[in-house]
Amino acid sequence: MFAIAKPEPAKGLVATDVSQVTVRTDEVRIGVTHAGICGTDMHIYQWDDWAKGRIKPPLVIGHEFVGEIIEVGSSVTEYSIGQRVSAECHIVCGVCTLCRTGRAHLCDNTNIVGVDRQGAFCEELVIPARNLWPINSKIADSHAAIFDPLGNAMHTVTTHPVAGQNVLISGAGAIGLAAVAMAKANGALTVTVVEPNAYKREIADTLGADLTLDPTKDDVVAAVKSHIPTVLLEMSGNEQALITGLNALEKGGKAALLGIPSKPVSLDLAELVIFKGLTLSGVIGRKMFETWYQVDNFVCHNPDAIDHIVTHTLPATEFQEAFNFLEQGKAIKAVLSFK
Amino acid sequence: MFAIAKPEPAKGLVATDVSQVTVRTDEVRIGVTHAGICGTDMHIYQWDDWAKGRIKPPLVIGHEFVGEIIEVGSSVTEYSIGQRVSAECHIVCGVCTLCRTGRAHLCDNTNIVGVDRQGAFCEELVIPARNLWPINSKIADSHAAIFDPLGNAMHTVTTHPVAGQNVLISGAGAIGLAAVAMAKANGALTVTVVEPNAYKREIADTLGADLTLDPTKDDVVAAVKSHIPTVLLEMSGNEQALITGLNALEKGGKAALLGIPSKPVSLDLAELVIFKGLTLSGVIGRKMFETWYQVDNFVCHNPDAIDHIVTHTLPATEFQEAFNFLEQGKAIKAVLSFK
Amino acid sequence: MFAIAKPEPAKGLVATDVSQVTVRTDEVRIGVTHAGICGTDMHIYQWDDWAKGRIKPPLVIGHEFVGEIIEVGSSVTEYSIGQRVSAECHIVCGVCTLCRTGRAHLCDNTNIVGVDRQGAFCEELVIPARNLWPINSKIADSHAAIFDPLGNAMHTVTTHPVAGQNVLISGAGAIGLAAVAMAKANGALTVTVVEPNAYKREIADTLGADLTLDPTKDDVVAAVKSHIPTVLLEMSGNEQALITGLNALEKGGKAALLGIPSKPVSLDLAELVIFKGLTLSGVIGRKMFETWYQVDNFVCHNPDAIDHIVTHTLPATEFQEAFNFLEQGKAIKAVLSFK
Amino acid sequence: MFAIAKPEPAKGLVATDVSQVTVRTDEVRIGVTHAGICGTDMHIYQWDDWAKGRIKPPLVIGHEFVGEIIEVGSSVTEYSIGQRVSAECHIVCGVCTLCRTGRAHLCDNTNIVGVDRQGAFCEELVIPARNLWPINSKIADSHAAIFDPLGNAMHTVTTHPVAGQNVLISGAGAIGLAAVAMAKANGALTVTVVEPNAYKREIADTLGADLTLDPTKDDVVAAVKSHIPTVLLEMSGNEQALITGLNALEKGGKAALLGIPSKPVSLDLAELVIFKGLTLSGVIGRKMFETWYQVDNFVCHNPDAIDHIVTHTLPATEFQEAFNFLEQGKAIKAVLSFK
Repeated sequence: MFAIAKPEPAKGLVATDVSQVTVRTDEVRIGVTHAGICGTDMHIYQWDDWAKGRIKPPLVIGHEFVGEIIEVGSSVTEYSIGQRVSAECHIVCGVCTLCRTGRAHLCDNTNIVGVDRQGAFCEELVIPARNLWPINSKIADSHAAIFDPLGNAMHTVTTHPVAGQNVLISGAGAIGLAAVAMAKANGALTVTVVEPNAYKREIADTLGADLTLDPTKDDVVAAVKSHIPTVLLEMSGNEQALITGLNALEKGGKAALLGIPSKPVSLDLAELVIFKGLTLSGVIGRKMFETWYQVDNFVCHNPDAIDHIVTHTLPATEFQEAFNFLEQGKAIKAVLSFK
Repeated sequence: MFAIAKPEPAKGLVATDVSQVTVRTDEVRIGVTHAGICGTDMHIYQWDDWAKGRIKPPLVIGHEFVGEIIEVGSSVTEYSIGQRVSAECHIVCGVCTLCRTGRAHLCDNTNIVGVDRQGAFCEELVIPARNLWPINSKIADSHAAIFDPLGNAMHTVTTHPVAGQNVLISGAGAIGLAAVAMAKANGALTVTVVEPNAYKREIADTLGADLTLDPTKDDVVAAVKSHIPTVLLEMSGNEQALITGLNALEKGGKAALLGIPSKPVSLDLAELVIFKGLTLSGVIGRKMFETWYQVDNFVCHNPDAIDHIVTHTLPATEFQEAFNFLEQGKAIKAVLSFK
Repeated sequence: MFAIAKPEPAKGLVATDVSQVTVRTDEVRIGVTHAGICGTDMHIYQWDDWAKGRIKPPLVIGHEFVGEIIEVGSSVTEYSIGQRVSAECHIVCGVCTLCRTGRAHLCDNTNIVGVDRQGAFCEELVIPARNLWPINSKIADSHAAIFDPLGNAMHTVTTHPVAGQNVLISGAGAIGLAAVAMAKANGALTVTVVEPNAYKREIADTLGADLTLDPTKDDVVAAVKSHIPTVLLEMSGNEQALITGLNALEKGGKAALLGIPSKPVSLDLAELVIFKGLTLSGVIGRKMFETWYQVDNFVCHNPDAIDHIVTHTLPATEFQEAFNFLEQGKAIKAVLSFK
Repeated sequence: MFAIAKPEPAKGLVATDVSQVTVRTDEVRIGVTHAGICGTDMHIYQWDDWAKGRIKPPLVIGHEFVGEIIEVGSSVTEYSIGQRVSAECHIVCGVCTLCRTGRAHLCDNTNIVGVDRQGAFCEELVIPARNLWPINSKIADSHAAIFDPLGNAMHTVTTHPVAGQNVLISGAGAIGLAAVAMAKANGALTVTVVEPNAYKREIADTLGADLTLDPTKDDVVAAVKSHIPTVLLEMSGNEQALITGLNALEKGGKAALLGIPSKPVSLDLAELVIFKGLTLSGVIGRKMFETWYQVDNFVCHNPDAIDHIVTHTLPATEFQEAFNFLEQGKAIKAVLSFK
């Protein structure tokens, strides 16, 4: 079968041919039709420090997808051949304390598709049935393919209530942009976006941002004085963006941190957090499966927003071009077609 | 009247004589009987960088006290002469958004007794009636005198629910020790205390700590493996203590930060906060007046605990000795008698 | 001065002439320009059982208003003559446990303008300064006049989070209709309205309701099967409406009860509440002043919605006509002009 | 194998002999050693209206138990033969919205052991592995056998925070009594118990109740004036007890309703719930598996409390005597030994 893989410990990816995997009793086989390219895939493509420490080539990558079930394991009763599905690609143990208390997204035994095991950039994917998410017939394939990053956005947006709040979003990549539309849909009074890339700021405007700021030119704290942020969604992983965001927040405000700094950050905790009575929450993954229901509802009610985020759809064989666009900051979210 | 004041911008305090202040219509005059020495008073005594930037000598200091009302302003109807009272010494504006939405402890216009205006280390104190807290007759004077720091402890303990949780407290000064007893009273499953000073660890044991650790010798993370902390109360302001605490916390855990680092801290946010899904909350002051009710209930039900925290009671004229004890780490909380 | 009063214990209201009230040090005098007619005013007009038990004629009624400050008490510093203001007309004691812990709307010592003391249907109103709410210059007088009932709606809408939820509203009077627009603004996924009056259902449609149902004809539970409600806002006070609402709610759902049944209701608690794991919250008044900030933001961002709710504005002298319209169900909210 | 069964639709139970059930791939076979008699078992024994409508004889009953694994299905990896376990006896579907969003205890497809399928009053029980709960070696068999009702108590106690609160418990059967000890362990300031049976009140005293009241003689509302309840745990299912409890609650208070009224109740919602701003939550089952972790911690730290609740332990063959004791109100919790 056709697949896209990291063949060896160096920059780049290759088209390759892989053989079929066996389906166990509680698993299903999916014929992948579309798959999204994630920031994680870009890290693996570029072979950065994180990738060097985690990925063991050769490996088929990819973990955002939609497809059709083509085989079901013998004990799987709730799914059937022909169903269109996506899946949570964090495969968790199900038996640890975190899994048994509604915090499976924090499971220590998580095994990630396309990172720790064979990925979704392949004609077929085998995955446990309990990870599946059935796709509503109203939803387009290119939207269904990116439930995973939409889930990261939704998990962050719902970490602290945004209804009636002035929301500040730092970083407007695919996830930050989804968060703009989701924060508005969830009742944010205003959404302000801080992002240095003009192309991304423009899409933020289209998605309903009330104000977009360029941190390389604008004084963010001054610019939001008339609608002081009460909720910060940090999606850039940039130290200065975080500090600016905390500075801009109203006392008693809340921050959800999804962006991953590449090194330790230096924070004046006294002035930025303690004296201001702020609350900061780290966010990772998607709640299983609260977040999926929320994404489902959002996508059904806001398909146009997703169209602005999926800027490129290409045949899977042209994956190199998609990675080029993304690397150059000329695409937001690229979806590969495996049909 | 006798008072204890910072006379000039240098280390030390002096006994002094001050004249009476006029009582406005909405204020009361209190004959101070007992007052506690706070860490803030020690900063002013030692004349550290914070004090240099904030305090304008000459100034009567002190803000933890109990006394008797000896005069009431003309529009004050709910208090009367002879009543025993303490008071919230953060005098807030009452009209800003924070004050009008239950977050007066974060008011930008806060004026602190003994810091921004004449303090309580004086025979008399004039203060707005709305700041008063009537003292239950069951409560001893030396306990009533320290409702302010007990309130800091209670505010921190109640920031995240501790009932049924494994609590880790870093720093066992007066506030940290109060938090030990309060966490147990509020249903903590276990309380572990990390504190380098053996004298303080011993009092923590007496107050019901299940485990006390010396961070200079013990491997904290390893020592709590059998009862992994789910709530961290950071009361030391020490960078390494914070990092150790976050490391020790279970994924999904909660931290309340009261201790004030004297300089920016370097944090691996990715590993310590984001990937662990932690929530960190800055804590300052006392909720007006939820915290005061909680302290009142706690002190009424747990007088013995407070006796272990107020280690020294001296005549106000011997304040120098009290400051010496505290500076040498030989006292936990010292209360001065002004009677 | 001109005023509208209940002169004696019988149906009806009369235009009357009242003399000026003195302004105390902490009060202000307001020149009332507009006032809304509340359901409470209708109860007093009709002289129903509730009114008979609570109101002591003669009494000037009315408690929803906007006006201009024309005199300030000597100790009032935060307001000045000429300022446009409305006010919270529940005058609370400020010193009880409920007042001191953020629950002043539940104060046992509440004194209500136009119910327990002289009301706002008068050229002038004297009220404590701490009850005032400054009106943003962007807001129309007829909108500012009804912050009180908009506050009831907002308090109910915010009792349980509605963002991303399917909301069911029973009862589409002025408050229920405001709740439709507020639930949508706060991110409700869908809003379904149950109301027997076709005129009110039509306005609900205009305000953004996704579905309106007539309980005298429609099978409510069946009609919402495709978007099962997770939040119920009960604003009718009708026993059957409440039971239908609880029946329609998803297991684990939340209900906020604002509508006041005129007599005890019979509830199958086992089937409707316990086995379904529902949560029911009683709602009264407005949170001081969280709700006022929320209403302020809502009205500034959604003036058109309020225009659909204030269906009638008349000179105060024509109050009888306004009460007639309301009594006949031909008006939603009527505002009287006192200018 | 020996089992206790309801043989036909009439009062009573019989000892019977049943054959072995096959273990499916994801199930385990448990050699039951001890089982508790639940109120539900008593309903079935007495053959009341509920039982007539739900139970289809012949049926082996019982659903509170502990035992040893004697066979594991082929796909079960996390449990092994010889392990001591109890289990959640609500077998849920795992795939509905409620199951996938942390509310499995509300699953519409719940199948209950000993009610809808063969029960635990038998030498062997076959149950899905995902329902198992491993029993800590510190815990006695008679304590492990009643995790199910202890879970009902814990779920109710944790529905609203009790730390620092004055708690009122109505009904002191096995679950109500467990709630007394759990509320104290979770930091309740005071616990008041309302219960007509003197024997049960005495055990409540032993378990740490601060005040016990007899509703047939005491004026409950008057008796709690000095420590007005802020949390009500309704465990009697009695209409008058519920009304008294709501009357006694402080405004803004919270109620958790576990007791199941046998018929609709008549409630003055206006006076009891709406004007008081109360919140009422229906409680059923146990959260899977948050509640089980909480019970585990509680039992490990408070074995003495459980000893006061398990008043009788008898051989399974003497089950008739156990039911007699319970029916006469002379036992709190009876455990049958199947060894």
